[in-house]
Amino acid sequence: MESAKEFKKVIDTVSTLLDEICFEVDEEGVRASAMDPSHVALVSLEIPRLAFEEYEADNHEIGIDLEAFKKVMNRAKSKDRLILELDEEKNKLNVIFENTGKRKFSLALLDLSASSVKVPEIEYPNVIMIKGDAFKEALKDADLFSDYVILKVDEEKFVVHAKGDLNDFNAEFEKDSSAIISLDVKEEAKSAFNLDYLKDMVKGVSSGDIIKIYLGNDMPVKIEYTLAGVNLTFLLAPRIEG
Amino acid sequence: MESAKEFKKVIDTVSTLLDEICFEVDEEGVRASAMDPSHVALVSLEIPRLAFEEYEADNHEIGIDLEAFKKVMNRAKSKDRLILELDEEKNKLNVIFENTGKRKFSLALLDLSASSVKVPEIEYPNVIMIKGDAFKEALKDADLFSDYVILKVDEEKFVVHAKGDLNDFNAEFEKDSSAIISLDVKEEAKSAFNLDYLKDMVKGVSSGDIIKIYLGNDMPVKIEYTLAGVNLTFLLAPRIEG
Amino acid sequence: MESAKEFKKVIDTVSTLLDEICFEVDEEGVRASAMDPSHVALVSLEIPRLAFEEYEADNHEIGIDLEAFKKVMNRAKSKDRLILELDEEKNKLNVIFENTGKRKFSLALLDLSASSVKVPEIEYPNVIMIKGDAFKEALKDADLFSDYVILKVDEEKFVVHAKGDLNDFNAEFEKDSSAIISLDVKEEAKSAFNLDYLKDMVKGVSSGDIIKIYLGNDMPVKIEYTLAGVNLTFLLAPRIEG
Repeated sequence: MESAKEFKKVIDTVSTLLDEICFEVDEEGVRASAMDPSHVALVSLEIPRLAFEEYEADNHEIGIDLEAFKKVMNRAKSKDRLILELDEEKNKLNVIFENTGKRKFSLALLDLSASSVKVPEIEYPNVIMIKGDAFKEALKDADLFSDYVILKVDEEKFVVHAKGDLNDFNAEFEKDSSAIISLDVKEEAKSAFNLDYLKDMVKGVSSGDIIKIYLGNDMPVKIEYTLAGVNLTFLLAPRIEG
Repeated sequence: MESAKEFKKVIDTVSTLLDEICFEVDEEGVRASAMDPSHVALVSLEIPRLAFEEYEADNHEIGIDLEAFKKVMNRAKSKDRLILELDEEKNKLNVIFENTGKRKFSLALLDLSASSVKVPEIEYPNVIMIKGDAFKEALKDADLFSDYVILKVDEEKFVVHAKGDLNDFNAEFEKDSSAIISLDVKEEAKSAFNLDYLKDMVKGVSSGDIIKIYLGNDMPVKIEYTLAGVNLTFLLAPRIEG
Repeated sequence: MESAKEFKKVIDTVSTLLDEICFEVDEEGVRASAMDPSHVALVSLEIPRLAFEEYEADNHEIGIDLEAFKKVMNRAKSKDRLILELDEEKNKLNVIFENTGKRKFSLALLDLSASSVKVPEIEYPNVIMIKGDAFKEALKDADLFSDYVILKVDEEKFVVHAKGDLNDFNAEFEKDSSAIISLDVKEEAKSAFNLDYLKDMVKGVSSGDIIKIYLGNDMPVKIEYTLAGVNLTFLLAPRIEG
């Protein structure tokens, strides 16, 4: 991959939700999907072979400890080129940063098998396309007053709402606001979600990135975006209100 | 107000000294003054209506929890416009950041009544006008060796002095130093003050801001400066040496 | 000295390894050398009189508490000029920052006598000249997986290697890599060293600085570089493998 620093954000995000992951590698690219340990959120990522400058792979399942992978990726410098290399003999994944000199980290493989959990194909009534940092900041705002957040959409606007004991927060993104790329609404929807999970899901997003939010009533929210050529998809079940 | 980020510094400073505040609002602007909980320091602020781009207000007393206000203001981004709006019906102060989208924080009002404490009108023998960061840095230097500081002034210079058990510190600002704007001295003065309070009082100051220090013998020190169009005044009693 | 901020890095580095130091001052400049408290590492520094813009000194031994000196140097701003001044009468070292105004810190002198430990004159088979940040980053990489590091050199390359329980790390700097200034090798060498000590020794190094590493088999490693005109030399005994 060209930029180690960009790929670092992908691993940063995924490692907040998962402890370990099993990458399924084949000629077409790399895929992985898994439930988080508490089985509330689904994480899925896909790296098409085109995301790599060069790509050469047979069929493999590569189990990785994400804590170790994250520590390694945090050592990436802004001009490092990233090479991922499977050493079958030693049973290691080599993570190589090329710049001045060559720094090679060899990570022990875990004995995992690929998850059978895939992102279910659900038809959603509404799709919101929003600038990543606008959504991310609204979640951080909401975090001041509550540990869950209500996402609402109608034909006019997308709303992020948090209600605390004393104070409350409301972010309104009108259809024609510069934060909104598009608002595709078939039926008004409103659902509550755990805020920590949502914040983790958009952790790697920075200004310029665009997020797709699929929202319905009594449906899990689906969040999609692309980081460093990696397609990330997250699913989070709605919060059942007592 | 035009810049939320600037006003944030005002609330940051005031909230280190006070837990809650009652703003008195009328046609002319906003005022508040209060003693800190330990009754050592007096804090006073005045926001003339001209500090606002637009201003529309009747007479009101608005009691606010400064911890919550500070948390909200810390969410201000550099290009956010700030709107303050009293919602009498819901008994809330709306703090609105406008940028891409509109983020509205609603803070519950506290049942406070305006303080009767005002800044007393004292005639001071000496007034020092000094660049804010020069004074602020000297206080931080002094903090290495002591928890109080001695401020001294004569016709030639303004001195910040700290005496530790082993080591000591001295900052000398000569009349013609570039840090000094003016030195208006009628009688030599020297007094000791609690360093933590002084540091809190100049917390929001950055380079470019100018501080007015009113200093006498056996008198409280008075510190005045303007941040984001807000006039801030602080009074601190001298330390009685044992 | 012209730049207080640069000299700060010297004191930062030395103070991680030593608690106190006795500077030997004479007409030619300033020197000091000492073993760290656990007697594993030797630290030596030399400030030739030319490193100072102006220099005027008789023979003196100046014992200083490095913790206090470091705290003072951390208060240096980027445009401060640094003046060091011995006040024999008060038995203090004055550390003066000149900028707008003059900030004078007076440090109590300690009753130390100059160390008799000097850097021994050893003939080394190999000398590696490497860009400081490349070496420093490799040590930080190694720190992910181990608390010691193996330094290896042959005619072709210089290698920094760390072996953890599960994962391992390898940085290879080929002779013609842009990180290597020169590789002067008479015999292949390989030795293990404590990583914390090595990291402390290069703490003040930033990009642009060049490090000289003297490496042999069963010999202490010698590390030399120059910061703000100060010549720093460190010696670290090899780790005896069990």
